[in-house]
Amino acid sequence: MTTQTNRPLPTLTDVRKARERLDGIAIRTPLIRNQRLDELTGGQIFLKCENLQRTGSFKFRGGYNAVAANLDVARAKGVIASSSGNHAQGVAEACQIFGVDVTIIMPADAPQSKKDRTMRSGAKLVEFDRYRDDRDAILDDLATKSGALKIHPFEHPDVIAGQGTVGLETGEQMSELGVVPDHVIACTGGGGLLAGIYLALHENYPGAAFHTAEPFGHDDQAKSHALGKRIANEQAPPSVQDAIITPLPGEASFALLKGQVGAGLVATDQDALNAVKFAFEELKLVVEPGGACALACIMNGALNVTKKTVVVTLSGGNVDSKMMAHALGV
Amino acid sequence: MTTQTNRPLPTLTDVRKARERLDGIAIRTPLIRNQRLDELTGGQIFLKCENLQRTGSFKFRGGYNAVAANLDVARAKGVIASSSGNHAQGVAEACQIFGVDVTIIMPADAPQSKKDRTMRSGAKLVEFDRYRDDRDAILDDLATKSGALKIHPFEHPDVIAGQGTVGLETGEQMSELGVVPDHVIACTGGGGLLAGIYLALHENYPGAAFHTAEPFGHDDQAKSHALGKRIANEQAPPSVQDAIITPLPGEASFALLKGQVGAGLVATDQDALNAVKFAFEELKLVVEPGGACALACIMNGALNVTKKTVVVTLSGGNVDSKMMAHALGV
Repeated sequence: MTTQTNRPLPTLTDVRKARERLDGIAIRTPLIRNQRLDELTGGQIFLKCENLQRTGSFKFRGGYNAVAANLDVARAKGVIASSSGNHAQGVAEACQIFGVDVTIIMPADAPQSKKDRTMRSGAKLVEFDRYRDDRDAILDDLATKSGALKIHPFEHPDVIAGQGTVGLETGEQMSELGVVPDHVIACTGGGGLLAGIYLALHENYPGAAFHTAEPFGHDDQAKSHALGKRIANEQAPPSVQDAIITPLPGEASFALLKGQVGAGLVATDQDALNAVKFAFEELKLVVEPGGACALACIMNGALNVTKKTVVVTLSGGNVDSKMMAHALGV
Repeated sequence: MTTQTNRPLPTLTDVRKARERLDGIAIRTPLIRNQRLDELTGGQIFLKCENLQRTGSFKFRGGYNAVAANLDVARAKGVIASSSGNHAQGVAEACQIFGVDVTIIMPADAPQSKKDRTMRSGAKLVEFDRYRDDRDAILDDLATKSGALKIHPFEHPDVIAGQGTVGLETGEQMSELGVVPDHVIACTGGGGLLAGIYLALHENYPGAAFHTAEPFGHDDQAKSHALGKRIANEQAPPSVQDAIITPLPGEASFALLKGQVGAGLVATDQDALNAVKFAFEELKLVVEPGGACALACIMNGALNVTKKTVVVTLSGGNVDSKMMAHALGV
């Protein structure tokens, strides 16, 4: 199976291969429960804690798998990726592990902490002006000149397969606990995480509904899956859930998920900040607003989970101190 | 084996019984690793995340086990405990589970959030003036009148046995990973947690050194174990590590640990706040200053862990937003 542009789509076999590559490298993140959350929602909620993953988000999985699966090119020509956040850190750390050169294209006004974290993994930064420059043109130009391995954050099949290992682990952990999910919810930007999880889990759990969770005003996934074709957001209002803001669903993830997903869920920024605060106070976990979107969607009633068994991804924890203070109302 | 006052001391069998009682009730908290922490310390560090336990600290284990093991008295006469913090929440939640009346003696100036959290579990609060009133006298008076089950935070043998389940789980988790600890470090006030962990682990890991971790100026455990007899701190300077401030080692835990512990470790308040900040930024975990003391003691060099395999307890996460903002420098 391929996309319209003839890009191959990943399969469950690819996710299993990714799992082998990541074994002993990625953290097998815990799947935790919390009494208060169950009381609050009326469901049996299992939180997959990818905020505890290396580099603070699930993005390490996909980045590492893409480098590992294309190591000859990566070693010979280096790696290049564009990201202002979690994908940059994931790819940079993967390249550091393999001793591979990596260039990250990042907006000049990205937070210094994200630049620092990316550079401490040895990445070379190329900055651009996000209002004047064309990021994709810079990336393509550099990639063409160098021949470097280009790792797209959600279109690359090895990235989707890597993110799918979140699903494989969750399936094993649910099995060990003897529970079966009714709903699986992932924080969704381009859709790589949910597509990977769907590949990993849908055969074993044919009764489970898979849901995208998106920021209010950025619900291109919800709209696209409802319509059956990819449509972009009309506007792009600013959002604290920056980690999962994309204009349009990824082509690959949309092809994998089309006709397969349940209702698309939406959380406002205030819902996400409430979830960040709840995670801090009750779960004792540091979660970034975009990484708390799926949690927000069961706390705000977007999905009724009464008496349901639900897997919720906490997809990242890279929140700076000021944003956390804002969420906590300090 | 008993203490000088003829109180029975708990045994490994008691810890195993506690484990059975807590099965399916307490969270089997994750034992996690972090790449940055290993790089920073030069060791192979395993963090036992009791901040993710019900009520936000390991204290739930001991409180629940004490109620469960003495359920007839608890049901007939109620439960009483004195605590301004984590023990109160642990005991209150345990009593709520069993539908047992519970009274908590708490200083009138305890933070409102701790009062609220204790009351939301249905506990009755009795407030006292910590500068004028004698807390123990109030407790004894109420207990004598009511005949209630008195649950001391670290002298009660069922409490120590309950805390020991942290050790049993850690042993299983280490086993699953095929690793053997060189050092085990617990945040220590009265000593119930370390004593319980020691009971659980020392037979299987005869080569492991067990260490207390205490706030600077409150290192009564370190001094007492070095001398071979219990001695009190000469002063009691204020400390942000309030969860583990006690004037004197517990009689029971001292009897269990005497002659068995390695060097007593100490962290200043600034060390603890640095560890809280590190946990937030790198581990993505919310840890209170007292619950970060053991982590602080490997980050400040109190124990050289180069090339060692080390278990570190993160014993609690009940930190308020302002203290966290202070630790983060916001």
